[in-house]
Amino acid sequence: RINSDRLWDSLMEMAKIGPGIAGGNNRQTVTDEDGEGRHLFKRWCDAAGLETGVDEMGTMFARREGTDPSLPPVYVGSHLDTQPTGGKYDGVLGVLGGLEIVRSLNDLDIKTKHPIVVTNWTNEEGARFAPAMMASGVFAGVLDQADVYEHTDKNGKKFGEELERIGWKGTEKVGDRKIHAFFELHIEQGPILEDEEIDIGVVTHGQGLKWLQVTLTGKEAHTGSTPMPKRRNAGLGMARVIELVHEIAMDYQPDAVGAVGHMEVYPNSRNIIAGRTVFTIDIRSPEKEVLEAMDGRIREGIDTICDALDIQYKIEQVGAFDPVTFDKGCVKAIRDAAERLGYTHRNIVSGAGHDACWINRVAPTAMVMCPCVDGLSHNEAEEITKEWAAAGADVLFHAVVETAVI
Amino acid sequence: RINSDRLWDSLMEMAKIGPGIAGGNNRQTVTDEDGEGRHLFKRWCDAAGLETGVDEMGTMFARREGTDPSLPPVYVGSHLDTQPTGGKYDGVLGVLGGLEIVRSLNDLDIKTKHPIVVTNWTNEEGARFAPAMMASGVFAGVLDQADVYEHTDKNGKKFGEELERIGWKGTEKVGDRKIHAFFELHIEQGPILEDEEIDIGVVTHGQGLKWLQVTLTGKEAHTGSTPMPKRRNAGLGMARVIELVHEIAMDYQPDAVGAVGHMEVYPNSRNIIAGRTVFTIDIRSPEKEVLEAMDGRIREGIDTICDALDIQYKIEQVGAFDPVTFDKGCVKAIRDAAERLGYTHRNIVSGAGHDACWINRVAPTAMVMCPCVDGLSHNEAEEITKEWAAAGADVLFHAVVETAVI
Ligand SMILES: NC(=O)NCCC(=O)O
Ligand SMILES: NC(=O)NCCC(=O)O
Repeated sequence: RINSDRLWDSLMEMAKIGPGIAGGNNRQTVTDEDGEGRHLFKRWCDAAGLETGVDEMGTMFARREGTDPSLPPVYVGSHLDTQPTGGKYDGVLGVLGGLEIVRSLNDLDIKTKHPIVVTNWTNEEGARFAPAMMASGVFAGVLDQADVYEHTDKNGKKFGEELERIGWKGTEKVGDRKIHAFFELHIEQGPILEDEEIDIGVVTHGQGLKWLQVTLTGKEAHTGSTPMPKRRNAGLGMARVIELVHEIAMDYQPDAVGAVGHMEVYPNSRNIIAGRTVFTIDIRSPEKEVLEAMDGRIREGIDTICDALDIQYKIEQVGAFDPVTFDKGCVKAIRDAAERLGYTHRNIVSGAGHDACWINRVAPTAMVMCPCVDGLSHNEAEEITKEWAAAGADVLFHAVVETAVI
Repeated sequence: RINSDRLWDSLMEMAKIGPGIAGGNNRQTVTDEDGEGRHLFKRWCDAAGLETGVDEMGTMFARREGTDPSLPPVYVGSHLDTQPTGGKYDGVLGVLGGLEIVRSLNDLDIKTKHPIVVTNWTNEEGARFAPAMMASGVFAGVLDQADVYEHTDKNGKKFGEELERIGWKGTEKVGDRKIHAFFELHIEQGPILEDEEIDIGVVTHGQGLKWLQVTLTGKEAHTGSTPMPKRRNAGLGMARVIELVHEIAMDYQPDAVGAVGHMEVYPNSRNIIAGRTVFTIDIRSPEKEVLEAMDGRIREGIDTICDALDIQYKIEQVGAFDPVTFDKGCVKAIRDAAERLGYTHRNIVSGAGHDACWINRVAPTAMVMCPCVDGLSHNEAEEITKEWAAAGADVLFHAVVETAVI
């Protein structure tokens, strides 16, 4: 078993970097705080005797040598970046859980045939720069590195320039590494495991996602002196699209979800009818056909809404991944580990996207989940217990070591 | 008649200060740009031989002495502040039209019995700091000076401190001046005069207004992994309230209008269900009973919406004025002037709020309106012709001079 106190202490130590305003974290990707978190993680890796490297997307790799260095390594990790109002565990547990595995292997003086590499993928959250899982997407060859370097945040800053500014743009070519298998530990971010009082989620599938960024263009005008029939109200258009997305998601739930979390209003003045709104629709389903059907209905609905309001629209897909089926062998390694360690477990579908979803396309991959309080995540109040974290890391430990072969 | 070229040149000169991004202006109240605009106006007043003063709300007064200095002055003016994406005429025409009157009186060497005071009221727009018509509201004793000093903009800056920072907090006690009559020239900001090809709007009434700032509190949660029935979506709640306001306004139009132009979303991330939204409802009607009925239906509707979505709400009234009936004598002076000068005219109800609406409570007041292209205002593309401006200023000239008595 891993050392659960040490794992917890490391989680609490990392949470001191980029504190939020309500007990959580604001350590968004390629900010100064992200840089600080990376330095702390590197110091820990150095202390554990790992050999570290950084690729051109800023992804960090920390290698514990195998007895046969020619074998491809087993990778384990997640991400250290957070939402603007994020929790202390989303992503961080997966990275520090990976670190805890090699620390425990060191303690127990266990050698594995395959090297083990702990990974911190850059910009998993997609909060500051769309899309989510950016670095793992480039690693898997799904996203284009030159293209994502140009992606801008709300202040017009470019991802590539910010990565360089914080000093974490490495020299290693992205995607060059051979991966024997990849394992990711993550909090569930949903309520199922806690509700059913189950220790471990064996993640067999992941939902697919689409992010549709919509720009509506009406006409700025005075809220007082512009007659109702003369209005071209981009704010009202946005409101109707938000309701549309909700209704469509309700039609398909529980096999789908949908919401709009990001909205910008121009010029955003009390007495000006909005001339322009920009917002992002987030729809997800484990079924590709459902996702496509929702996408079609949304586009049709937006057309109808804008026609009625005499406003123009533009729809850009700024993020997307297909539903994922994880590797049978890796999934079995996780289920067997949970079984062996005596933890209750069940199969589960990941509602969120994860770096594992992209890496699964280039290497055998699976995930292990532990519960989180109230299923709450992407909220500073995100919480887990030390025991839940320990169970997840134990299962990760056994799955990784079995795959890396003693 | 006034000098229409000089009036137009001054309008264009003022428009160079705080230029917008699309041909209009961003000279919001108590910003550096507002300060610069004030300096230019003061230089013009000095050159015209006027005696200037500034009150504790930053309102500027420029006096042309009367032949009987003991008589209360006739006031004429409007505001130099603009929306963040405002036009070149909204407010500015009224101030510079007032200045043009005294310049013309100087040219023609005409003396009036009553002094004439040209006025630039602070923060008419209410864009940066609610409410609109702030300084005239304090002058009229409807708003509390100490209270509005504490009002904050989106960045938490206080009105009173910003007024001091730009150096335009005067020492004169607000509201101490005796006003014989007040006249305000303004662009219509609506489409009626242009549609009917009429030169002059004789403003007999002004609509009443309510600004209701609504805060909805739900729960931040992951857009992917949170089941639809577990969501407490403050963004969806806002969308429903926006639709509600629109529907209610449509029920009462043309005797009412309603919209939401200001919206804030927290934390505003693509993959976080909004935990909190803050937005301002703007409803208006020339009938007080209609305004009250709309207010009641909105509050009831918000209660129902929030109940269904399991979210909390708070409603704060951040601006309000009752429908206005302007002074019969002043209105007649304007109508007579238009008639005498041979301009086509009609009675009109102001859709927007104006400083005249507050001053009407403490002194006989009326307004003259000129058309604007497409009825468009609160838009950088706001436009008028030199001829329209000249006609409005001519009517203002005659009404003011007749009231101030030669
Ligand atoms: N796990 C997680 O929160 N990932 C962010 C990407 C997503 O929105 O699913
Ligand atoms: N005239 C004008 O645009 N005033 C601003 C206050 C309002 O919203 O009516």
